[in-house]
Amino acid sequence: MEFKINFSGTGHRYTPEEVELVGRVMNEADPLTQGKYRNEFEAKFKAMMGLEHCFAVHTATAALELSAQLCQFHPGDELIVPSHTYTASVYPFVKKGAKIVWCDIDLATRVVSANEIIPHITPRTKAVLVPHIYGYMAEMEPIMELSKKHGFFVIEDVAQAMGTERNGIQAGAHGHFGIYSFHSHKNITTLGEGGMLALKDPAMAKILPALRHNGHCPWDFKQSDYWVPAGINVDLPQLNGEYIQPNNYCLGEVECALGIKLLDRLDAINDEKRARAIRFIDAMKDFPEIEFHRIDDRRHNYHLLVSRITNGKSYDVLRKMAYEKQIKCVVQYYPLHRYDYYKKNGFGYANVPNTDMFYDNMVSFPFQHWMSEDEIAYMLKSIQEVLLDLRKSKA
Amino acid sequence: MEFKINFSGTGHRYTPEEVELVGRVMNEADPLTQGKYRNEFEAKFKAMMGLEHCFAVHTATAALELSAQLCQFHPGDELIVPSHTYTASVYPFVKKGAKIVWCDIDLATRVVSANEIIPHITPRTKAVLVPHIYGYMAEMEPIMELSKKHGFFVIEDVAQAMGTERNGIQAGAHGHFGIYSFHSHKNITTLGEGGMLALKDPAMAKILPALRHNGHCPWDFKQSDYWVPAGINVDLPQLNGEYIQPNNYCLGEVECALGIKLLDRLDAINDEKRARAIRFIDAMKDFPEIEFHRIDDRRHNYHLLVSRITNGKSYDVLRKMAYEKQIKCVVQYYPLHRYDYYKKNGFGYANVPNTDMFYDNMVSFPFQHWMSEDEIAYMLKSIQEVLLDLRKSKA
Repeated sequence: MEFKINFSGTGHRYTPEEVELVGRVMNEADPLTQGKYRNEFEAKFKAMMGLEHCFAVHTATAALELSAQLCQFHPGDELIVPSHTYTASVYPFVKKGAKIVWCDIDLATRVVSANEIIPHITPRTKAVLVPHIYGYMAEMEPIMELSKKHGFFVIEDVAQAMGTERNGIQAGAHGHFGIYSFHSHKNITTLGEGGMLALKDPAMAKILPALRHNGHCPWDFKQSDYWVPAGINVDLPQLNGEYIQPNNYCLGEVECALGIKLLDRLDAINDEKRARAIRFIDAMKDFPEIEFHRIDDRRHNYHLLVSRITNGKSYDVLRKMAYEKQIKCVVQYYPLHRYDYYKKNGFGYANVPNTDMFYDNMVSFPFQHWMSEDEIAYMLKSIQEVLLDLRKSKA
Repeated sequence: MEFKINFSGTGHRYTPEEVELVGRVMNEADPLTQGKYRNEFEAKFKAMMGLEHCFAVHTATAALELSAQLCQFHPGDELIVPSHTYTASVYPFVKKGAKIVWCDIDLATRVVSANEIIPHITPRTKAVLVPHIYGYMAEMEPIMELSKKHGFFVIEDVAQAMGTERNGIQAGAHGHFGIYSFHSHKNITTLGEGGMLALKDPAMAKILPALRHNGHCPWDFKQSDYWVPAGINVDLPQLNGEYIQPNNYCLGEVECALGIKLLDRLDAINDEKRARAIRFIDAMKDFPEIEFHRIDDRRHNYHLLVSRITNGKSYDVLRKMAYEKQIKCVVQYYPLHRYDYYKKNGFGYANVPNTDMFYDNMVSFPFQHWMSEDEIAYMLKSIQEVLLDLRKSKA
């Protein structure tokens, strides 16, 4: 069906300057991958976010696969992760042998806190993954204290929350790994695909270039000539005495050059989305049957505008919005343990009442940065009409 | 050091129309990945190359990783592959558990033929990988006959030979798998990274979209509404009763749109490179100490212009070209069994005299499509002077 307001797959539009830059770099970059723009992108990202080591990769999934490799899961090692997140946050860990232990979320913030993690910690807890989902940065300090106490890795999945911060620390800067996304849906996108891996351990940082690019690394001796014995070595990186197989997760130079420029707009886009979200939320204050998470500071970037319907009528809200108002609201994120993928991998059960409660009553509104004020106004008027209409119908 | 003629990492330049197209698609595509341009790119590629199923992916390495997964190697299963190729052709198979069996190349053509494969066939041969290296399409018919007789898969690595053909059949159309590359170095490049996987088996084609994109697949029932039970399923694909784990190998829409347009130039670029290579080779006919592979038809696209020095003086040729003429010739491809990566994986030995002979005497000239006639003329004059000079020195 055709929608007046679609749930679009592109988070933002490009400026004429960004388009011009791409055209220029297309013919100027040599090579078109793994060159100076990658290095500049990583350096700028690192400085902006207060990170130690940054590696531009093809997708956030690639960054997650790398972090899963670097955690070095052995049989029985566990990953604690909320079932309420996108599948790409978790399946790389399944592939690398982690036993998935589902934790719940906090119902008000929709993210995980130390409280939800603590009951699941065991001597086999190897890592905890914290998705800053919808754009809200979870409270990292208590989680990092647990990490210190119990000796597990913390992976911050910042795919939706890039640029958010709390107490002057950016999302992704607390954990052993920070995962960033420049995917089409995100607040800034490097032509639809792109990611960044941040990490702290210098031993991991040292092998990361080889893990990203086909095992390529310099020779461990001085070459007599640039072609002797070959241009560059190909090796099998080691960490803690174990081999780690390489991959090809390279991000092209055009994407990196664009990423450098887009970083200048990140705060503005985040601030504009937040201001708009706050206006929308505040305009709904007389509708207690819809609950938003209202955070009017840089801890939330409102990548998505999500709500929980508290009167049990979310299905009716979705139907009326779609079929009467032609607005494509969606429901996110299907609790991962319910998917066939996780059932077949042996992770099909979770005791996560908040996750179930939230998912089964949630409505996510179209909220791309480029939506017009008229569209927002129509969406606001529509949801108000739908909720008023539903008040008249019997429960 | 600075070179007058560098061995550049970009295979070709973009036309103003291609730049304009990219700028337009940047703001028009919705979403910016996994949309209509991917579908059009795959359809056009399939039609042009006479293929059955095509899947656009992020890199040729990703296409190779997928083909390695689909071969379903079990412990002891063998892959026969020449040691004379780029590492990305082979390490995906190491990762998927194949036992690597190195075969030799034909010294004149630098590619593998049935003759080099036959001695290595065993009951455990699961697959044979044929790189059409430097742009020359190997003779596939006898290899496909071996495949039928012995029941192994054939993977054609067409990364360097896209658009080449023999007897009216394109490189990549014979094998069970065809691997194509749009990497920065290649004759056409989708902004530095990009690949295509062709395959024939309908059961493999059916699960490929899920293997490419995070396990996403349609629900196996009709949804009552688009959000019930969730937008799309996430599953663990099966082939021959075994599970195969998904990946994220998506290629963005801008790259796909550009790829569609670049396909119109593929034959012209290949023809121009070949005509230039033939002129260069013919101008060297009075120098028997340098041997080229001369093929004046569409079986060779001269992605690279490589030679073998037959008087044992390739090191001197490289030195003089680099340090006297400031031309960066290189040596390709370090026999894979010599790399630390393959040694550590247990594949550090090969009996491949032609491979050793070729590598240890080869000189590869800079040969990007955009090089000027003046540069080619300077390179020709330089190699002639260098060879004449070396005739004077003692052996």
